[in-house]
Parts: sequence; structure tokens; C-alpha cells
Amino acid sequence: MSGNFFGQNFKISTFGESHGTAVGVIIDGVTPGVAIEEQYIQQQMDRRKPGQSSVTSPRKEYDKINIVSGTFQGKTTGTPLCIILYNTDMRPEAYDDIKNSFRPGHADFTYQQKYGLRDYRGSGRASGRETAARVAAGAVARKLLEQRGVSVLAYAVEIGGIRCEVFDEESIEKNAVRACDPQAAAKMIEKIEALAQQGDSCGGIVECVIRGVSPGLGEPAFDKLDADLAKAMLSIGAVKGIEFGEGFQAARMLGSQHNDAMNQHGFVTNHAGGIIGGISTGTDIVFRIAVKPTSSISVPQQTVNMAGEETVIQTIGRHDPCICPRIVPVVEAMACLVLEDHYKRQAAMLGRV
Amino acid sequence: MSGNFFGQNFKISTFGESHGTAVGVIIDGVTPGVAIEEQYIQQQMDRRKPGQSSVTSPRKEYDKINIVSGTFQGKTTGTPLCIILYNTDMRPEAYDDIKNSFRPGHADFTYQQKYGLRDYRGSGRASGRETAARVAAGAVARKLLEQRGVSVLAYAVEIGGIRCEVFDEESIEKNAVRACDPQAAAKMIEKIEALAQQGDSCGGIVECVIRGVSPGLGEPAFDKLDADLAKAMLSIGAVKGIEFGEGFQAARMLGSQHNDAMNQHGFVTNHAGGIIGGISTGTDIVFRIAVKPTSSISVPQQTVNMAGEETVIQTIGRHDPCICPRIVPVVEAMACLVLEDHYKRQAAMLGRV
Amino acid sequence: MSGNFFGQNFKISTFGESHGTAVGVIIDGVTPGVAIEEQYIQQQMDRRKPGQSSVTSPRKEYDKINIVSGTFQGKTTGTPLCIILYNTDMRPEAYDDIKNSFRPGHADFTYQQKYGLRDYRGSGRASGRETAARVAAGAVARKLLEQRGVSVLAYAVEIGGIRCEVFDEESIEKNAVRACDPQAAAKMIEKIEALAQQGDSCGGIVECVIRGVSPGLGEPAFDKLDADLAKAMLSIGAVKGIEFGEGFQAARMLGSQHNDAMNQHGFVTNHAGGIIGGISTGTDIVFRIAVKPTSSISVPQQTVNMAGEETVIQTIGRHDPCICPRIVPVVEAMACLVLEDHYKRQAAMLGRV
Amino acid sequence: MSGNFFGQNFKISTFGESHGTAVGVIIDGVTPGVAIEEQYIQQQMDRRKPGQSSVTSPRKEYDKINIVSGTFQGKTTGTPLCIILYNTDMRPEAYDDIKNSFRPGHADFTYQQKYGLRDYRGSGRASGRETAARVAAGAVARKLLEQRGVSVLAYAVEIGGIRCEVFDEESIEKNAVRACDPQAAAKMIEKIEALAQQGDSCGGIVECVIRGVSPGLGEPAFDKLDADLAKAMLSIGAVKGIEFGEGFQAARMLGSQHNDAMNQHGFVTNHAGGIIGGISTGTDIVFRIAVKPTSSISVPQQTVNMAGEETVIQTIGRHDPCICPRIVPVVEAMACLVLEDHYKRQAAMLGRV
Repeated sequence: MSGNFFGQNFKISTFGESHGTAVGVIIDGVTPGVAIEEQYIQQQMDRRKPGQSSVTSPRKEYDKINIVSGTFQGKTTGTPLCIILYNTDMRPEAYDDIKNSFRPGHADFTYQQKYGLRDYRGSGRASGRETAARVAAGAVARKLLEQRGVSVLAYAVEIGGIRCEVFDEESIEKNAVRACDPQAAAKMIEKIEALAQQGDSCGGIVECVIRGVSPGLGEPAFDKLDADLAKAMLSIGAVKGIEFGEGFQAARMLGSQHNDAMNQHGFVTNHAGGIIGGISTGTDIVFRIAVKPTSSISVPQQTVNMAGEETVIQTIGRHDPCICPRIVPVVEAMACLVLEDHYKRQAAMLGRV
Repeated sequence: MSGNFFGQNFKISTFGESHGTAVGVIIDGVTPGVAIEEQYIQQQMDRRKPGQSSVTSPRKEYDKINIVSGTFQGKTTGTPLCIILYNTDMRPEAYDDIKNSFRPGHADFTYQQKYGLRDYRGSGRASGRETAARVAAGAVARKLLEQRGVSVLAYAVEIGGIRCEVFDEESIEKNAVRACDPQAAAKMIEKIEALAQQGDSCGGIVECVIRGVSPGLGEPAFDKLDADLAKAMLSIGAVKGIEFGEGFQAARMLGSQHNDAMNQHGFVTNHAGGIIGGISTGTDIVFRIAVKPTSSISVPQQTVNMAGEETVIQTIGRHDPCICPRIVPVVEAMACLVLEDHYKRQAAMLGRV
Repeated sequence: MSGNFFGQNFKISTFGESHGTAVGVIIDGVTPGVAIEEQYIQQQMDRRKPGQSSVTSPRKEYDKINIVSGTFQGKTTGTPLCIILYNTDMRPEAYDDIKNSFRPGHADFTYQQKYGLRDYRGSGRASGRETAARVAAGAVARKLLEQRGVSVLAYAVEIGGIRCEVFDEESIEKNAVRACDPQAAAKMIEKIEALAQQGDSCGGIVECVIRGVSPGLGEPAFDKLDADLAKAMLSIGAVKGIEFGEGFQAARMLGSQHNDAMNQHGFVTNHAGGIIGGISTGTDIVFRIAVKPTSSISVPQQTVNMAGEETVIQTIGRHDPCICPRIVPVVEAMACLVLEDHYKRQAAMLGRV
Repeated sequence: MSGNFFGQNFKISTFGESHGTAVGVIIDGVTPGVAIEEQYIQQQMDRRKPGQSSVTSPRKEYDKINIVSGTFQGKTTGTPLCIILYNTDMRPEAYDDIKNSFRPGHADFTYQQKYGLRDYRGSGRASGRETAARVAAGAVARKLLEQRGVSVLAYAVEIGGIRCEVFDEESIEKNAVRACDPQAAAKMIEKIEALAQQGDSCGGIVECVIRGVSPGLGEPAFDKLDADLAKAMLSIGAVKGIEFGEGFQAARMLGSQHNDAMNQHGFVTNHAGGIIGGISTGTDIVFRIAVKPTSSISVPQQTVNMAGEETVIQTIGRHDPCICPRIVPVVEAMACLVLEDHYKRQAAMLGRV
């Protein structure tokens, strides 16, 4: 089975290609009777859509959501909620020159190997455009989590080698790179603009904090909460790594340093990042992901064509020189999907109707 | 649903507690007609079992496998293969003093929160002992992968802050820490022994290389090959992070540096770690995981008891001062399970009978 | 999790309400590289759509398919194929009088109990309209099965107590009730028209024959081929029973009568209906389903309203006085979905890529 | 994937062959903190075990349960509950003469086609012995359902063409065929004994009544409560059909006759069998299954051998001349598994923790 489904009890299925008719999502397992305004979902879409600033792709997609099913008189009915986002600014002809060659860093080669054919228009299904459907679904999960008192916040902590030195939560949505340090943000933007000028790109590190989670979420053995979050994050195209709490630094700590002691007020520290034994502790869940530099660059690159002959390729198009700012709402959406799913799994285990 | 199942088309389900009767696994979806010797599986068990050296727990578990079903006349039949490992060296009484308190870094608190009760004997289900069942299942997957020409190799590259400087494959199984550098290994062992002396513990970094994988494995969107590997690895108790190819370092590279160019012989570099767009490229798959220091230490630690009162705890028992050496076969096993599952998923998509 | 997903390796997910914007389906696991014409799918839709004859609902739905994703240049790409059918002839206002009362035989009461609210417009999600999405998906499965040499044929063998006496395959699609006996068909039509005149309805029995199936399809234990077909059929709204081969009559036979002997040409008889031990024998698969009389009748019926008070209800609307003719393509569609899924499951088990 | 898993949120996985070491089951998703006595489960095993009377197989299996995991101090812990039943009275040598021929009515031929090899000892995995594992799991589900006020009762209503004329609940467990009419039971036993004498067998019809179910259980579209029960029942080896409420007779009723009217006390009739639109109404759930005559008969039968040559076979062994009495506890077990799973799915949808 193809991997277009995600979740167990709060389950989504996405569809659609970058330059096809539309992308969209079915959300199954939505709690019935919840008031959900289109505007609430649209607001999350607007955070992800292209064309927001000088550091994002100039493609014009309004990402206007269409709720096709699953609501009645403004409330969820418990039946599948389908949301469709029609593509509007398609330029499939822009990809004619790449239809016979494999762009380095792109899924062109691997899709061709897997399927024996591929929709080469803007990477087809492999495009980051598929994440628009995730953000729509994530907004529905976010709504349900709000009622549980859970909030999910992501932001850049490093871009192009420039690190944030302070954590200023208020500033995050006010700068074009969604960094948590306004001064670092200014330098990051400068760097991205310079790289874009050269036709090159850069990556970064995005951190996510989840607050208000009940203790006891997550399943033992394979479906640990951190395991499911890791899968969710690595399922985002440009992500190359994830770490929880102290993460890779934990490998250099002693047990006596890393263990989180407890006192009568709860955990004294949070080296674990809010998850122990795969189950939430009730403290903030904290993880970071590594985002690779965007593969689409206009610098000439060596590659081969469909016949296996060597050639040089330049990816001219409308691309993001750094995807970190737009990956932030996707990270939040995926985290929301995992969390609401695990709340519903815990409800299933307890079995109260 | 509890998370005790793993895989889609090559599926396992584990059961058992650390100080209960047994741990075991059902493996469903095994290719029929494959000759599989008990000795082949036992060999993998022996790599994981405790009591192997000065740097591992002295608990005596022979981990003798019992194949209860799924084979006939030495061959797999295609029906579920159940393997049971009876616990032999249980000392549940050793845990009497911790039944009312939560050990820092352990799942004691989170299990109590999740279930409202817990099997406190050696962490019960949360014990690393559950991974014995995974190694048994992984050995079956490994056998099937061998026939496909795929090999999986893991080893420590850093322990207690000491890094390997060379890659000497031959040396890995010859040193007690399964490091790829014999000189570093000697220092690591020294460090672990010193820490054990102090009742403390350390962590490390384990790398895994998968060779011979066909291009085209992995599913788009959510079940990307790296996403499923990430979930598999984070589902191992002590793992706090994972990175593929350049990993977190990719965040500091330019697109022109990170993209893997191709020539007529294939990929020129492998910054991506063998997976692009979630699908295998056919080059080596490379990832690293961060292993936290073992939670079980005999240094006195501050915690609370079941009544919420503050107390001090010392975990006296038979523990691994560094779990890296014994996590190596578990990492390999989980990687084998993911790989064979994705081969079977690719077979399903192609649909040839 | 809500039950809007079906299949393991050839998987569908439907969405949509009867008087909402649209109904539709995502099909995941489609073999890549298969030429599929819209007209091929549309033809199946036309067999199910209302307004075809005097014995079906006069609602005007063209059920024009829109393939939103999953194809490129006329071929399947292996990515999710989404098909949307916009509703055109909605009359939600026709349901104003039933929004406060529960129609006997309908899911009004049970949905209200399950969700605490319901979309009362034409039964919302519980409407037979949802099966349009299944027929679209079934057409894709049928295309894949054609390439395997498998054909699926369903037809009425009894309606309103009138039984078919002969099996005339050619006549099936030529009579309005899709019966396999043209003379019986004429009587069935007469009976349905008379009942419609009285505001009443009737049921019937539909038989399905699947030819050309490979031996060896189906999974042992729970996912037997007949078990999955049974689930598929009982998931169609009006179906109240299913039987394979001799079915309920087998309960009255001796073992020596029911066992299908074999000779060098294969099975001598087919009392089993083509499935033994849950696995296909290679002979025709034969089953029959019991279809209840349509619940929507305009005869006055006793019921209660939302406040629990007794009342009398008459369901005035555009309904099918007998659903058998239109259920035939739905039965075929569901059978196609089960078969293609089991072919892909067999492919997964064998694991050849 | 092989079909050895059943359920979504209350999930089981069975393993084991008839003449192998053991059969067993893993139950995942058990509510934690429930007291469960071995004796309670054993009692259900004793109802299914062979050798109970003159009308059952004389094979001596005590079916003594071994709870290997998932309980602590007499209570469920929420972790997987594994139950093993060791085979004791194996006579694999009794099957030497059938290893090269296909017994009519048995899965010998289909398993050989599916897997390319088979465990011919007593049908291996295809044996009814696998249902012992289901009964053990069903007992755990039954315990949970008891706390919800749900009871499940099955009994024979027809055997060898002899029908029950009265419903005497008290008499069911007091007669060897578990029929609901003691006078009919006496005739049934006589008939079975006579057939056994001739080396032949017969089938029958088993009815199941589920009382105390909450309204609102079952999922729309594919996972309707009746669809899941149908799958569960057809997954039992000898079952060839199922019908709910009026069942096949509904095909001959008018809508005005079949619709269940409501008054202020609830439903006036129960033609639907307690499920409408796939969701429970709160009235008794009633269904009947058709059980074929046992395939194992000692009457000589025509068949072919592995080389495709015609031959005659006689199945000498220890078989049930009528499986109805022993299928009764299996039907109840499967019904319990479906019900508890749907309670947990409803809990998941509501999402309360």
C-alpha cells in the first residue's frame, strides 16, 4: 500500500500533485459537534502559502480551502471531513526541460525507479505542495487540541548557519523567517536574499514546543509518542534529522546529568524533552529538526538524463531559497495530527463511551 | 490501540515483561518456503543478550529461542512465526524498594499516569528486555534480505564523548563496545568501567549502514523510507534522535553543496544518506542515532513517591552502564524489519502474483 | 477511527453526504503505468446513477466523474487517484419535515445516538449516494482485474418474491431490474411499479459470479477471501445477509454431498462457491446477498420525534421502490475492490520486486 | 500481509498449527486494571475443547491456558496479554497418507496453491484448532463486556435438517449439541451418531443474540457493525453464510412490513436484528450463520494427488461429525471481540481521556 495515510484513530489521507487540478485531504475520526470556522483553517493555510515575502517562492497560490464534506450547520458531524485546495498558478510547461533529466537532490530519479514513470511537473506528488493538505488537516486537529488546552508552536532556531541567541516568542510571526530572535532573523533574511541572488539555497534548524499535554500519552513498544513524532517530521520532504530534549547532546552526558529529577512540583529539569519511555510526562514536549538546503537551485549541476547520459541542469523556476519559514506551519500541523491521534488512542484504551 | 504492532506487510507483534514468564514475538507475512535455521536466529540473540562483557549487565539470560509455529520441516510456511524467549534470571524481589517511587529517567511515572497501575518489576513492559523479541524477528527479516543481497551493519561511532577516528569494519564485533575503531574502543571501555565503578552511566552515537538496497523502495508522503526508519529507531527506548546522511550538518550546507550530483556510474556523492524524497536511491543508506546515558544508576537521585512526597532513590540492580553495545543488534533488527516490509510493500504496489 | 477506509494494499477512502457539495473517493495503491480512460469509469457510474427507468429514483444526478489526481498523460502514476462527483440535484428543503423525527428503517435514530447530531438531509452520510464513490473506485479495480483475466458479474435472481427460472447472461443489462431471466424481469418490473403506486417497496436477492480468479487468493485466519467479501457486501446499506456456494442450504447437506471432489481436470462440483479454507480454488466464486425492501416509503408509519413523543411519518421524496437494480453495480464494485486487494496482498507475501 | 490480525482498537493476533507445538494469541488494547481470573478464561476453553461428548472429536486436548504476559497481581496492565495453549495429543503420523493428496472440502489444495508448500499435519494452520486461540481472546473481551452489561449467547437452531421448535435458554448448555430445544436436541444427537457410524457428517444453523448493547455502536460506510460481525463469522472455517434479523426472508417482505416502527418505549419490532445503517439500535442484535457439514469424512472420495493423478481418499482420523456444538463458543468469542472493539472505537471517536 502506498503511504498516503497517516494516523490510527485520527486519520488523514492526502492526494494531489503540484501542477495537477488540486491537492486535498480526507480527515477521518473527527470528534462530532465541534464548531469549526473556515476562517480558522484558512489562517493556517495563509501561514504556509507561497509568495509571502522576499524569502519565499513567488508562486501565487491562494490556497483557498473548500470544505466538501463532514460539517453541517457549522459543526463537525463525525463523518469524513474533506478539504480541497485547487491549484491556480500552475506552469507545467516550465518543466519541459527537466522531463528527461534528473534534478540533483530531487525525487525525480527515485520516483522514476519506483514507478517506472513520473509526473515531472513541479515534482508532481513529491512536491512540497502536498504539505498544504497536511496544514489544512492539522488546523482541524489544532482546533480539537485547543479544547484540551494543548498548544503547538514551531520556529526557526538556526538558518544558514546563523543561530538565534534569545527566545522572543512574540517576534516569531513578525519576521519573514519565523525565527525566535528578531536580530538573528534580520541576518538570516539578508543571507537568504544573497544566496537567492546567486541561485543557491540554504537550510536550517526548526524547534517545536508542545505545551499543555496530559501525562500518559503515547503507546509502549513501537508507537511511542516520540517515535510517531519522528515519523511525522521525517515524512516532511526536506527534513534530515530530529532530536528530542537534549537530543544528540544527550550522547555526551552522564546518567546522573541527563535523568530528570522530580520534586513535589513535578520534574525539576526537562532533559528528556517531555517524553520518557515513549509516553508524555506532562512537561513541555521539545524537539528540533534539521532542514536541508532547498534542492531547487539555478546553479548548473551535473546529472544524467533518462538515457543515462551525462548532462548539466539548471533548475529555473519559482522556488524557496530556504524552506524553513514555510516548513514551520507544516511542523506544527504534523505535531497536531500526532497529538490528537494519541489522545484518541488513549481514549480507545480506556474504552469509556 | 496499544502500539505493540509494527509493519504493514511484514508485520510483527511483541509481548512480554522483563520479569514475567517470557517475552516473544509473532511475525506475520513471512515469505513461504525459506529455509531458516534456529542457529541463525540464535546467533543474533547472542549478540544482544546480557552478560557478554564487563560493560554489560550481569543478568544471565540465555535468550534461547523457541520457534512455536510457522515452520515445517525446516522451512517457513507463510503462516505466523511465533518465537518465545522464556525469562530465566528474574529477580522481581529486587524491585520491592522501587515499587512506591518513580526512578528518574525511567518510565515508572509515565506508565503509572497512562495505565493507573504498573508492573514495577524491572520496568515490566518498558524494559529493554522487550527488544529481545525484536532481535528474533529481525533475524527472520535479515534472512529474507540476504536473499535480496541486502546487508545491514550498525556500530558505535561515539561513546562517552570518545569518537571513532577510523572505520575498521573487521574490528566491530571484536571489541566489547562494537565500535568501528579499535583504539577508540579501548578508551570507551575504560571510560564505561570507570563510570560503572561510580554507579553512573554514559551514552553514545550508533551509526547504521544498509548496503545493496534496490532503488525505488519507500512510499511517498507519510511512509517515506526515512520516516519509517526514524520511527523504528525512536521506538527503541534509549534513542533520543536520528539523522540521515549529513543530518544536522545539512542545515549548515548550501544547496549546491548538499545536492548529490549524478554521472553515468550513478551518484557522485551521498550527502542524502541513500534516500531522496523518501525513496531509496540505490546507494548506501546511512543514519546515526543518539543514545542517552542509561537511566538506571546507583547514584542517589531526588524523586517523589506514589503519594507525591519527595524522597531519594538509588537504583541498585544489574544494569548496563552504557547500552550502546547491546543496542547495535537492536538497531540492525529494526532496520531489517523496515526494509523487508518496504520490499513487500513495493511488491504489493506492483501487484505481480 | 471512523470506518471510512477499506482495503489493505489496494485501499480506498470515501467521503461526502447525499445533499452536501460532493461525494468522492481516494484510491491508494493503484498499479502505476495503467492506461485508464474517464469513459471507462463513467460507464460504471451510469449503471448506478438514478433516473434510469421507471423502477428507480427520479433524482437527476449525472454522476460525472472528475479525476483530480493520480494520473498523468492518461496513465496511472501510482499516487492516490482522487475522483470527485459533485452533487447537482440536491433538495435539502425536502427533508425539513423529518429533521425532528426518526424515519423507521433509516439510520436517523442510530446516527443521532452515535454522534449526538446528524445531517438529516437525505440521510447525509448514511445515504446510498455514498456508494457512487465506491462504484468509481471499483471501476479502477475492475480495470486492473481485466488485465489479470478476472471478470465480475452480478444480477438479480429474485425480486419481490419473483424468482428467475433461467440464467440468460445476455439479458441482464437489457432489463430495468438487471435480472438474469427476461420473463421474470417483466413480472418484477410490474410488481415494483404496483408497489411504488401504493407508496411501498420490496427487496430481493442478488447473485454475483467472479470468473478467472487465480487459485491461492485469500488469507488464512481472519482475512479469508469469503470473510472479506462478506464484510464488503454487508457494508452496503440495504444488505441483510450473504451466502457462498450452497450457502444456507449447505446446513442441510451431508459431508459426502457437499465436499467438492476433484479429478484431473479440476473440481467436479462447486458446492463451496469457489473458496475453501478462505482461499480461492480457481473455480468461479459464487455468492448471493439478501437485499431488504427500501426503507423510504410514503405509507404512514409510527415513530417518535427527537423529544421522544410518538408521531406518524410519511417519507415523501424521490426514492427507489426496489434498490436491487442499482445495487448490482455496487456489488460488482465492492467485489472488484476485494479481489484486487487480495491480489496485491498475495504479491506482498511473495515479495517479488 | 497475512490475515492473522483482527480488530482495530481491541486487536488480536493468533498463531499456531494443529499438530505443532502450540496455538496462542496476543490481545492488544486490553483495558488496564481489570481483574481477570484464569478460571474465567478456562471455562470458555472447556466449552470448545474436543472430547466432550459422543458427537465431538475424541482428540484429547485439555486446552489449559497459560497467560504469559499482560497481567500483574491478577489484573490486566494494558500491555499485550499473550495466552498460549500447548498441543498435547498430536498424532502427525496419522496424516502421512494424505500428505500427497488433497482431501475434498479441505484447504489442502488451496494452501498448496497459495504457499507452494503446506503443513499437512491435521490441516496445519487451516485446522479448526486455531479457533481455540480465538476463544481465549474472546473470554477476555467477554469480561470487559460484562462490565458494560453486554451478554452474548449462541446456540444451534437447526442441525442435520432438524429444527428447534421452542427457545429454551436454560437447556442450551445442558445438551451435547447446544440446541435451544431439548426435544430437537435429542433427535439431532441421534442423527449425528448415525451419520458418524456411516463415516459421514452434517451441518446446521447457529443463532447468536447479543443483549445490552448501547445504541450508537458501529461505524458508517465500511466498518458497519453488521459488516464486521459478518467478516468475523465468515472467518470461522465452516461458515458459509450469515443473515441479520429477518435475513434472506427480508428479501420477500415489503418496506411497510420490514421497517421497525418506534413508540415511546423504543422499537416495536426488531426485523432489522438490532442494527440499522450499520449502527446498533440498542435492541438485541440477532444473526444466524450457516455451518457446512464437516469436510473430514471416512466415506471414500474421488480426488487428485500432488502429481495431478486421480485417486480415492478416506479421511480416517478423530473428527467432529457435526461441528455446530463446538462452533457455538467460537461464534460467541468472535462476537465479543467485535463488540469490545467497537466500544473502543466509539470511545476513540468521542476522544475523552
